[in-house]
Amino acid sequence: MLKSSQPIGIFDSGVGGLTVLKELRHILPEEDLIYLGDTARVPYGSRSPKTVIRYSERNTEFLVKRGIKLLVVACNTSSSVSLDLLRSKNTIPVIGVIEPGAKKALELTKNGIIGVIGTEATIRSQAYQEAIKKLAQGKKVQVIGQACPLLVPLVEEGWVDDPITREVVQRYLNPLIKMKIDVLVLGCTHYPLLEKVIREVVGEGVTLINSAKETAEEVKKVLELLNLKREKRKGSTTFYVTDNPEKFQYLGELFLGERPEEVEEIDL
Amino acid sequence: MLKSSQPIGIFDSGVGGLTVLKELRHILPEEDLIYLGDTARVPYGSRSPKTVIRYSERNTEFLVKRGIKLLVVACNTSSSVSLDLLRSKNTIPVIGVIEPGAKKALELTKNGIIGVIGTEATIRSQAYQEAIKKLAQGKKVQVIGQACPLLVPLVEEGWVDDPITREVVQRYLNPLIKMKIDVLVLGCTHYPLLEKVIREVVGEGVTLINSAKETAEEVKKVLELLNLKREKRKGSTTFYVTDNPEKFQYLGELFLGERPEEVEEIDL
Repeated sequence: MLKSSQPIGIFDSGVGGLTVLKELRHILPEEDLIYLGDTARVPYGSRSPKTVIRYSERNTEFLVKRGIKLLVVACNTSSSVSLDLLRSKNTIPVIGVIEPGAKKALELTKNGIIGVIGTEATIRSQAYQEAIKKLAQGKKVQVIGQACPLLVPLVEEGWVDDPITREVVQRYLNPLIKMKIDVLVLGCTHYPLLEKVIREVVGEGVTLINSAKETAEEVKKVLELLNLKREKRKGSTTFYVTDNPEKFQYLGELFLGERPEEVEEIDL
Repeated sequence: MLKSSQPIGIFDSGVGGLTVLKELRHILPEEDLIYLGDTARVPYGSRSPKTVIRYSERNTEFLVKRGIKLLVVACNTSSSVSLDLLRSKNTIPVIGVIEPGAKKALELTKNGIIGVIGTEATIRSQAYQEAIKKLAQGKKVQVIGQACPLLVPLVEEGWVDDPITREVVQRYLNPLIKMKIDVLVLGCTHYPLLEKVIREVVGEGVTLINSAKETAEEVKKVLELLNLKREKRKGSTTFYVTDNPEKFQYLGELFLGERPEEVEEIDL
């Protein structure tokens, strides 16, 4: 029997999921959050599905042992390959980062032409394409995926508002703009940091979907539905990583706007 | 007792070491080469030293079991943190990618101002700086390190001769050019693919040191010294990876100019 007093668990392969944590912190300030960054095995994007599934199970196990009431898989690669399995093996609700963004994209598109950008693995997995088509229920949509492997390293270099980054974004997005997308899903947890540059490149005519924000909204909705939302207190945040806590702290500051002070290194 | 008929083992965290393999293939065509890419754990550059050492020991063990006569640690990060330990634990010669480049830089600098570019981990480890100072033996040198975290992803995106890459290289190298380096060490196995662009940016006045080439020369020298060099035959090349052989084949073609056809996936 789940209790509202239990914490929420979030895992990602690295720092990217912090964009989801930040949104959760913002709209659910009363909750205790436990974040696990599997930094010893980052990036998941270049691993095979079976390897990503193995890592995802291990992360889930670690968080479930810490008594979480809900799990957020804040990693696109893991969400695209391991969600069904994690749901079948666990009794707590499991929320990925793909469905919430897919849902919002369908809701907001007018011409039915939806662009999705993400890492090579996310795009190749067709996870967004499939999620959108499944939710479309007969509505005619066209989903155009574009892998943008340089955007994560650009964010991690700190070049988030930079002419070079703008050029790279331009090159990746030009084909989508030509195909007249009216909605663009930022299908990678790092990309919300590039929202300003992406907005400049696509112009005002294209609606940007921030998956991190949509995922946090979904978590809130599920907690309310299950009567598991906490009230009238200030929640805590705990960070675990599997390697290099100093780098996590350094990059974490880029994502959170403040340095995650206490980061515990664990062996998984 | 080592025999010349034994193969040479080479490991790297991924595809980067293929630049070393290519040079070895070129100057030692008679040797059998076994390449191990630890693609399940790439990149080593963002891991902590103790994690990199653990992975390096595991890779070495795998290759030693295959009866190699010499080990090439074709990974800068691993060379900078694990070489002493691997040498102390194994009886075969172990050659890293740092010392050969450092030696050549010292030999070729005229004004004693040497630039080194590499991944964040390589530069932070001060491995080149220390190797050069140790070999300098009183000769006055200044070593200026510059981390270039975007260059590996740019190579892997295939943008090797590209205006965006030129701009990125320009930004990274401008401070070194201003400090009047006359030698630049390409301290990452991916960088030989960017030699043309780097050459354009630094101009003719700066000598580029290709670590992969220098390492291969060192291997040849050691084999000759130990009477372990093979003659009059055509050597074979065997590839092992710990994950995603398809991606290795795809990227491998960028590095080798031909697709590595048989790549075996192993569990380490």
